Amino acid sequence: MKILTILGSSRDNGNSEYLVNQALEGIEHTQLRLSEYKINPITDMRHTEEGFSPVDDDYESVLTDFLAHDLIIFVTPIYWFGMTSHMKLFFDRWSQYMRDDRFDFKMQVHGKKAYVVTTGGSNPYVTGLPLIQQFGHIFDFVGMSFEDYVIGNAVKPGEIKEDLLALDKMKAWNHTFKK
Amino acid sequence: MKILTILGSSRDNGNSEYLVNQALEGIEHTQLRLSEYKINPITDMRHTEEGFSPVDDDYESVLTDFLAHDLIIFVTPIYWFGMTSHMKLFFDRWSQYMRDDRFDFKMQVHGKKAYVVTTGGSNPYVTGLPLIQQFGHIFDFVGMSFEDYVIGNAVKPGEIKEDLLALDKMKAWNHTFKK
Amino acid sequence: MKILTILGSSRDNGNSEYLVNQALEGIEHTQLRLSEYKINPITDMRHTEEGFSPVDDDYESVLTDFLAHDLIIFVTPIYWFGMTSHMKLFFDRWSQYMRDDRFDFKMQVHGKKAYVVTTGGSNPYVTGLPLIQQFGHIFDFVGMSFEDYVIGNAVKPGEIKEDLLALDKMKAWNHTFKK
Amino acid sequence: MKILTILGSSRDNGNSEYLVNQALEGIEHTQLRLSEYKINPITDMRHTEEGFSPVDDDYESVLTDFLAHDLIIFVTPIYWFGMTSHMKLFFDRWSQYMRDDRFDFKMQVHGKKAYVVTTGGSNPYVTGLPLIQQFGHIFDFVGMSFEDYVIGNAVKPGEIKEDLLALDKMKAWNHTFKK
Repeated sequence: MKILTILGSSRDNGNSEYLVNQALEGIEHTQLRLSEYKINPITDMRHTEEGFSPVDDDYESVLTDFLAHDLIIFVTPIYWFGMTSHMKLFFDRWSQYMRDDRFDFKMQVHGKKAYVVTTGGSNPYVTGLPLIQQFGHIFDFVGMSFEDYVIGNAVKPGEIKEDLLALDKMKAWNHTFKK
Repeated sequence: MKILTILGSSRDNGNSEYLVNQALEGIEHTQLRLSEYKINPITDMRHTEEGFSPVDDDYESVLTDFLAHDLIIFVTPIYWFGMTSHMKLFFDRWSQYMRDDRFDFKMQVHGKKAYVVTTGGSNPYVTGLPLIQQFGHIFDFVGMSFEDYVIGNAVKPGEIKEDLLALDKMKAWNHTFKK
Repeated sequence: MKILTILGSSRDNGNSEYLVNQALEGIEHTQLRLSEYKINPITDMRHTEEGFSPVDDDYESVLTDFLAHDLIIFVTPIYWFGMTSHMKLFFDRWSQYMRDDRFDFKMQVHGKKAYVVTTGGSNPYVTGLPLIQQFGHIFDFVGMSFEDYVIGNAVKPGEIKEDLLALDKMKAWNHTFKK
Repeated sequence: MKILTILGSSRDNGNSEYLVNQALEGIEHTQLRLSEYKINPITDMRHTEEGFSPVDDDYESVLTDFLAHDLIIFVTPIYWFGMTSHMKLFFDRWSQYMRDDRFDFKMQVHGKKAYVVTTGGSNPYVTGLPLIQQFGHIFDFVGMSFEDYVIGNAVKPGEIKEDLLALDKMKAWNHTFKK
């Protein structure tokens, strides 16, 4: 079970990142920090004759990493009641690579295990639910298995350390991942 | 009542754009096509001593246009069960400019009227609901008034012309805007 | 295509009922007004040795009607951001009759077409969305096809007549049903 | 802080009840098992001249208990992706008693703390979210404070004992309630 975390925050050492690090203590995994890569917005060429054209950015490297792992933890603070732009940029380009014969996208994505780690303020246990539902629809659509998620209540740096229930959940995940 | 459409699609003349054009037939308005502007992802500096630093892109021009209008129509196809990256990039940077003394963001945003036009496939009347809820939370948070939305059922170019109910709604909006 | 409306309101001639009547003008159909039947809450006996026991109420007659039709229109005002108790009582007892050999519940429900007509106040286009999502989950679970829904904005008697878009939708449904 | 649990299950000693009992271990509280009371569906008389008329059932006793407590834990299994009929019957009648001068409903409800305990199968962490959103809307509407909720993954009797995270949360609540 090869584990990958995809970090969508624009800030290092944020609250979401803190959470996932607890879950992965002592566990081998790869980390992808999206803010370190140049990922352009998709240009929708699905319905043109020529199809998608190559994009001069870092996306294929990111995608290759994603496809090579079995268990993916999507880590994003809640920005404006949704995932960050960094992470949305990652998903939007799927539409291009689902149609790129060099990648066997659909087959490889199918069956991967998905986890979501997210944190936010403004009553995140309720206002964060549309985001969880969006992830649910995404995973359903491509056949990934939505294993679990955590919504942490934290805005300022370090605040997540007071969300004991979120931390408990990370311990439980750690236990599961160790098996 | 100064009207602005903010187009989040990566494709010109898409289905969402077709819809909003019906609603605005014969009505003076400004159009902002986000894909024509360079908008960088936010870097969250809320919690640093130095705060946000200037970003070398087109965002301030886009934001100035946004703030100068009273009725905003957000137009986005559904990409991966959410708004497009282009549009999410627009919202994420709000966090920066809410804290920029050169803009009176909070006061100016408060009370604006908001409409949402979105189109998609995969049973969009149900799977598009988390997106509508996200918009609802955003507008609540900043005190914009969520007037109405339309979810069109269309994926391929031109397909929206068969969604007669969505077109009816655009006619009704047109009627309202004319008053 | 045998059409059935299931009315969940506790009030005759309410706004939801007005809407569905527009959709069914000139169309043969059966009407089930739940408030005219005695339907007891379910007592969950799924996990007992003896299983469910017969209930002395009108449910089997209601269920038989439901199973005998192909296209079902669920009509309910929004009470406390959900369907009415009358309608929830109808669904809850499904759990009993899915397990009753006298009814071939699963086979017969599968493939039925479902429509939802609902009306409410308090910004129903947004606050009514959890109810639509609930219906979506119900129909998915039993394999009914969720064809369309309408959310009308109306509280006081007759108010629905001003919701021109909802009325337009009913006309469109009428057109579809006539085919 | 007077604590009340309102049990909406139709079964004694169910999974939701098990959870809440963990949260309340050693803590003084009152328990209301709705299935022990006769509660009729509401008949909507809001818009009639005569208004609501008295109902011959146990509702006023239930409501009086509810109003007399400060912290309310709503406990319901997920039936058909929503709260049970028993619990929906409880809420629907609020519409009557908000308008009954013998009760100062609005003032007394305002500010109460609300918790929700729910359990279900069929991927409840995602399919249970519309129910949580519905509770969120209800509490917002009457000014109750939505403190926290737990969704347990359990269908068969006793299954909840394997949902260690839900149990952890109950321990944390217990700790909070003890203060």
